[in-house]
Amino acid sequence: MYTLLNEYKDPGQIKKMSLKQLNEFSNEIREFLVEKVSKTGGHLASNLGVVELTISLYNVFDFEKDKLIWDVGHQAYVHKILTGRKDKFDTLRQYGGLSGFPKRNESRYDMFDTGHSSTSLSAALGMAKARDLKGEKNDVVAVIGDGALTGGMAFEALNDIGYSKTKMIIILNDNQMSISKNVGGMSTYLSKVRLDPNYNKLKEEVDNAISKIPNIGKGMTASIKKIKNGIKQIMVPSMLFEDMGIKYLGPIDGHNIKDVSKVLQLAKDIKGPVIIHVITKKGKGYEFAEKNPGKFHGIGPFNCDSGEISGKSGKGYSSAFGDTIVKLAEEDDRIVAITAAMKDGTGLTKFAERFPKRFFDVGIAEQHAVTMAAGMSCAGLKPIFAVYSTFLQRAYDQVIHDICIQNLHVIFAIDRAGIVGNDGETHQGIFDLSYLSQMPNMTIMCPKCTEELQYMFKWAVNFNGPVAIRYPRGGDNDKVLLSPIKNYKLGKWEVLLKSGNIALIATGKMVQTAVLVREKLKDSGINISVINAVFVKPIDADLLKTLVEKDYTIITLEDNVTHGGFGSMVLEFVNSLHKNTKVYNLGFKDEFVTHGNVNILYKLYGLDVDGIIKSILNTL
Amino acid sequence: MYTLLNEYKDPGQIKKMSLKQLNEFSNEIREFLVEKVSKTGGHLASNLGVVELTISLYNVFDFEKDKLIWDVGHQAYVHKILTGRKDKFDTLRQYGGLSGFPKRNESRYDMFDTGHSSTSLSAALGMAKARDLKGEKNDVVAVIGDGALTGGMAFEALNDIGYSKTKMIIILNDNQMSISKNVGGMSTYLSKVRLDPNYNKLKEEVDNAISKIPNIGKGMTASIKKIKNGIKQIMVPSMLFEDMGIKYLGPIDGHNIKDVSKVLQLAKDIKGPVIIHVITKKGKGYEFAEKNPGKFHGIGPFNCDSGEISGKSGKGYSSAFGDTIVKLAEEDDRIVAITAAMKDGTGLTKFAERFPKRFFDVGIAEQHAVTMAAGMSCAGLKPIFAVYSTFLQRAYDQVIHDICIQNLHVIFAIDRAGIVGNDGETHQGIFDLSYLSQMPNMTIMCPKCTEELQYMFKWAVNFNGPVAIRYPRGGDNDKVLLSPIKNYKLGKWEVLLKSGNIALIATGKMVQTAVLVREKLKDSGINISVINAVFVKPIDADLLKTLVEKDYTIITLEDNVTHGGFGSMVLEFVNSLHKNTKVYNLGFKDEFVTHGNVNILYKLYGLDVDGIIKSILNTL
Repeated sequence: MYTLLNEYKDPGQIKKMSLKQLNEFSNEIREFLVEKVSKTGGHLASNLGVVELTISLYNVFDFEKDKLIWDVGHQAYVHKILTGRKDKFDTLRQYGGLSGFPKRNESRYDMFDTGHSSTSLSAALGMAKARDLKGEKNDVVAVIGDGALTGGMAFEALNDIGYSKTKMIIILNDNQMSISKNVGGMSTYLSKVRLDPNYNKLKEEVDNAISKIPNIGKGMTASIKKIKNGIKQIMVPSMLFEDMGIKYLGPIDGHNIKDVSKVLQLAKDIKGPVIIHVITKKGKGYEFAEKNPGKFHGIGPFNCDSGEISGKSGKGYSSAFGDTIVKLAEEDDRIVAITAAMKDGTGLTKFAERFPKRFFDVGIAEQHAVTMAAGMSCAGLKPIFAVYSTFLQRAYDQVIHDICIQNLHVIFAIDRAGIVGNDGETHQGIFDLSYLSQMPNMTIMCPKCTEELQYMFKWAVNFNGPVAIRYPRGGDNDKVLLSPIKNYKLGKWEVLLKSGNIALIATGKMVQTAVLVREKLKDSGINISVINAVFVKPIDADLLKTLVEKDYTIITLEDNVTHGGFGSMVLEFVNSLHKNTKVYNLGFKDEFVTHGNVNILYKLYGLDVDGIIKSILNTL
Repeated sequence: MYTLLNEYKDPGQIKKMSLKQLNEFSNEIREFLVEKVSKTGGHLASNLGVVELTISLYNVFDFEKDKLIWDVGHQAYVHKILTGRKDKFDTLRQYGGLSGFPKRNESRYDMFDTGHSSTSLSAALGMAKARDLKGEKNDVVAVIGDGALTGGMAFEALNDIGYSKTKMIIILNDNQMSISKNVGGMSTYLSKVRLDPNYNKLKEEVDNAISKIPNIGKGMTASIKKIKNGIKQIMVPSMLFEDMGIKYLGPIDGHNIKDVSKVLQLAKDIKGPVIIHVITKKGKGYEFAEKNPGKFHGIGPFNCDSGEISGKSGKGYSSAFGDTIVKLAEEDDRIVAITAAMKDGTGLTKFAERFPKRFFDVGIAEQHAVTMAAGMSCAGLKPIFAVYSTFLQRAYDQVIHDICIQNLHVIFAIDRAGIVGNDGETHQGIFDLSYLSQMPNMTIMCPKCTEELQYMFKWAVNFNGPVAIRYPRGGDNDKVLLSPIKNYKLGKWEVLLKSGNIALIATGKMVQTAVLVREKLKDSGINISVINAVFVKPIDADLLKTLVEKDYTIITLEDNVTHGGFGSMVLEFVNSLHKNTKVYNLGFKDEFVTHGNVNILYKLYGLDVDGIIKSILNTL
């Protein structure tokens, strides 16, 4: 079944394989990917798209000394297979197992940790500049998707690369989409390039041009220039990248190992920066993924033969948000929705269908999304920016500078807050309560259940000023059923269950955990009060004062780092009363949270029911 | 002297002036700007560069309904003069006076608050989309400099604008420089455009083309296309903006009101987005500013006749940093310096001259700067990114995602931390201690004096991991002379002056204030201890434990918002000991800090010597 793959040991073998073998090897890797990811879940479509590209890279470069950086990094599975990690794929994205992204501490072939989009060009330029300063000789290769190219920092890097003329190789992996649909002027431009009739002629012409090189290898720099010009002539006349000072080669069929290898070889010998435009197909070779690359972008376990996702999926926060915003938008035509290339993930699919003119997908461009929302708000609309917690970090400055200073009515629908699990460090949403609560004028709400979420948004669209509503990945805890609050007063919390002189004040999804904690403690004869901190900012000063006066011990519970977060807000206020109240803050510590099942991680950090009970008993 | 300016009341008058009058008016405004800014200080060179451009905008558009957004906004003085604020220029950037940037609460003509670079296109697009959704008719005009165009979020916006084809007008104010030198592929591209021989022919050809239009105004859309094509032919063949889907007009001499007005008129009637490339000269018309636009970018009071800056300027933190890094770099060739278009402001001028190959100005591109530093660190260099506190906000995600997760040895030289004064809300550096301290693996240091800064950097370049060294604008307090610590131990503080049972723990520049507080209290017979919190993270747990055990009252003092900042770090730790220790946190409240003299602002927030003493007496 895996004839070549079973024999495979290290990258040195690739250079020794015949073209036929390399193609067979590609097929085996594809089969392996589908088999493994169908069991563990993971990023499939993007990896199926880069099998030949990755093999070609190892065919041409020597990554013992050359450096390879994967933008975003979820497409690095093939790279991991090729670099001694194929036997660990059963543990992919599991706690203690193989990461779904490149990790420097996992392999010497992983040159840079990635996860968020558009970082590869900057990192690669840094490495290339270091090489030049140190007088070393090696190639630096960055692989970036067309979607990631819409991120502003990729442009910042291109701008610097074009100017400084540092030698490096950029592979533009053009699969004609970012995670959902690709958008933007850059995308339009790339389509134009792809549709150019010269593209079809390319293969043979590159063959011809290269066949004229007497000797592939060193000392050919003079003739390269001629050939390069020849290749340039068969490409589109309008060269955005060349205008910026970066040599452009392509477009090339990214599934043709021979062609890709030849062009990579050519690029190695060109002085200065080169961009190689490679066309690939997301999901290539696995029918279901080719047809529906969005579904197979990041997917849970599925059935290989049917392509059906295994297991149930109840109604989660994202779809509750999606339903709610459609309903609200029907009643108020000032409501518009914005996403940064995460239409499906954030639950905006229905909204986009129902209100296409009021839906804005700006590409992977969180900074622009936030400031565009500010402009819309100034002009009388009610923009809702739906974004993952970890990606909103990209627009930290814009939220302060363009929204909060002007106190604009913009709503942030912050999905995937708290820990997200398998994607690990780069994707955990455990900083938002800290970075948002430090911003003047910001209001922060957290629904305790999916039903409460809808009433919060209703309140938020009728508020005036910036509001962040923060909710986790997934849905409600099946064991807990809570009635939603339907009417809100700014900064007022809900006293959910009252008794004892310990108040467990939880926010968001952690309220469900708090209720379970209370029930279990009750069984042991200990009574505590549970409070739902509907607002993380402003906090309920009156309620806290009452608790302090009645000498309650206060325990806060959040799925955020404790420093600067919700518990910190409570502590700072309670401390300012100077009544010697005991305050305990439960949440994530000052460290990054690794990948793995969410339940395992909660247990690890003492934030599962038993861990919290232990903490409470310690306070007694 | 100001014949026309004295008569000037409102923008309606501009349309009635003859070309000759408009030119005279320009001269008067220029004279007015030099006169006023020489007294108050402010941004001069950029405003002198846009006199004719601003007048032309008001000549063509009706900003009662059309919307005008100034990128960065420091070049909006002429706009302020034209919109009823000329009599307030004596209060420019003073507390309670005219802001140096557009402010929506200052005038109905200020459509969007700006301050940081590259936000205008996103905001303008938001307003244009809102207009279209609401079925309104008005123009939206954004004015952005060539420097600001290197910021990634401007590209994110261009990408969206080109794709969505929303009608809006972008003025590219190309003065061939950002705050210091302009860099990047975009800059190279623009130079190529400027140097094109066709540029010189432009004036007459535009005249010819436009003279053929039978009737400037409505109903000319058909013929516009023809003319546009005519104009296009006389421009450079390679059109980066047109590749992205944005129509391009230019380049135009930005000091020629007639030409600029004509092209603006033309742009009004083009469907979809248009970019008008206008060439201006920073400092235009004032000899000293033309010769040295960097010096006259943001300047204090100066002598009009000599161009000399009034008052002394002692050695500040920026130049102490500049000297230090040159010395350290001489001893360690792995040290490199990075700036995002702030070479002079951050004190890197000497370094750039001494080590040109180890100096990297990446343009206004903080995100790229941080991640490039990460790449350099991975490859064995010791990068120091010198940046203003407020601008590092742009790279919040990159600091977490690319530096801290990988625990890379990158040093952040954070200048202009705390309050900066006259630039106001958008430029105060009062959030960094909060947003940096929440990042795992980050070490934060604050020098108490300029001399201490040099030893801190020496320590930091020999540390391993991310280090932020944070220091304020300006220099030391003349009344306080303190000996620097020369050797550091991670997380160890300095007990500076010891007595009493109150510990005033201050960080950075505030240590100097704390010493003055102690002296003044001593005069009243009250003794307090003063501690220099050399490290904001990690805090000195041992020392704090001792203070708690000895039942000290702890007062923290920082020039940052208290929530999530230094005081919060101390409070969280002390609280975790549960010893009923009294902790008081002094710092900025949860609100934005307006513009004005730093001393006035400290007083206003109770952070001057008397205010702090008052707070301390309240704790007794």
